[in-house]
Amino acid sequence: MADEVVLLDFWVSPFGQRCRIALAEKGVEYEYSEQRLAGEKSDLLLRSNPVHKKIPVLLHAGRPVCESLIILEYIDETWPESEKKSPRRLLPDDPYARARARFWADYVDKKLFDCQTRLWKLRAGEASHEQAKRDMVEVLETLEAELGEREFFGGEAFGYLDVVLVPFVAWFHAYEKLGGFAMAEICPRLVAWGERCKEKDSVAKTLTDPEKVYEFALYLKDKFGAK
Amino acid sequence: MADEVVLLDFWVSPFGQRCRIALAEKGVEYEYSEQRLAGEKSDLLLRSNPVHKKIPVLLHAGRPVCESLIILEYIDETWPESEKKSPRRLLPDDPYARARARFWADYVDKKLFDCQTRLWKLRAGEASHEQAKRDMVEVLETLEAELGEREFFGGEAFGYLDVVLVPFVAWFHAYEKLGGFAMAEICPRLVAWGERCKEKDSVAKTLTDPEKVYEFALYLKDKFGAK
Repeated sequence: MADEVVLLDFWVSPFGQRCRIALAEKGVEYEYSEQRLAGEKSDLLLRSNPVHKKIPVLLHAGRPVCESLIILEYIDETWPESEKKSPRRLLPDDPYARARARFWADYVDKKLFDCQTRLWKLRAGEASHEQAKRDMVEVLETLEAELGEREFFGGEAFGYLDVVLVPFVAWFHAYEKLGGFAMAEICPRLVAWGERCKEKDSVAKTLTDPEKVYEFALYLKDKFGAK
Repeated sequence: MADEVVLLDFWVSPFGQRCRIALAEKGVEYEYSEQRLAGEKSDLLLRSNPVHKKIPVLLHAGRPVCESLIILEYIDETWPESEKKSPRRLLPDDPYARARARFWADYVDKKLFDCQTRLWKLRAGEASHEQAKRDMVEVLETLEAELGEREFFGGEAFGYLDVVLVPFVAWFHAYEKLGGFAMAEICPRLVAWGERCKEKDSVAKTLTDPEKVYEFALYLKDKFGAK
């Protein structure tokens, strides 16, 4: 397994999809290993991520790397030269621009994912669900403002923060259905950016069909007893 | 303010102390700006970190960097050459070693800090407080195992993960008082590592007196209504 690359993942996971997009951008060949999230977890997953027991895990020459943002940095540092040359590096070269990209990536994981989970977990009509909807709108508006007039978060090139955020584009439809708002009204630039990203092969072949994501969100809602 | 460095911080914050230790290790001169956490926040803090409105914030030539782990990476990339030469870089050079250091830094922020907060927030004797104590012991044992026989988490040199974790050494006394366990029994190597770290000027001049930390933990307990 000299230089073998394996990704332990789950089909609809935006965290796993980030890693798939980054590997595709770099032209790295790898084996995809679909994991069960319900029921018993595989020995390989438990052995590879004994601390969190979660996907995604990237195994490189048998050594595990866990947590998606850390996996992205590892991919960027291990395969700095992409075969396609664009982008050579996902993270920008300038330390301040790097810090800014990392800040917004952390924001996506702390805020966007939290709001999304609350949209599924809470029962529609309850005050806490109304609060989750308001918070989600605020998060989307904040990301819209950060994107501004740029083509990509990485500027002219699709970069680190684009990879981090783009899997959530497939969830926009579920946000609309379960949040009762129109994405095109709240964050038209973000919607247009998502369409631009989908023109890239790495993104197009990775993102889940929005209808399937919505079905999965309904399954989660049912599981949480909030249907 | 060409290259001026200012740190917005709060005296007892382990997140702020990380940044102070990293700046001291690199020999970077900076202005320390103590912030109020209770009552009204300063205009400077609100302007510098409008998203989270939290310390620490590093201002470099007027540009803000937020979130302590991101600040550490920024410091490491902006001032790679320390005047003292040791360590030249806080993060190791090897991508796998970097990913591992980042994984454990993330673990400290997600798990250790969460357990600590629950120790203060919950009322002693309640089932949830007993759970917080058990979780804290598990986190400390996990960090003890990761340190192993090494002198520092960075190996022979004091590095990134040492900087991330060492401010919490000053909280060990409060863990003992409020958790009712003996650190020397649970994690003797971690205790010895903390003493080794304190031999460094950057650490010695930054860490808070453990008695003052304990008083602060009691103040938090009171504030949370859990005294």
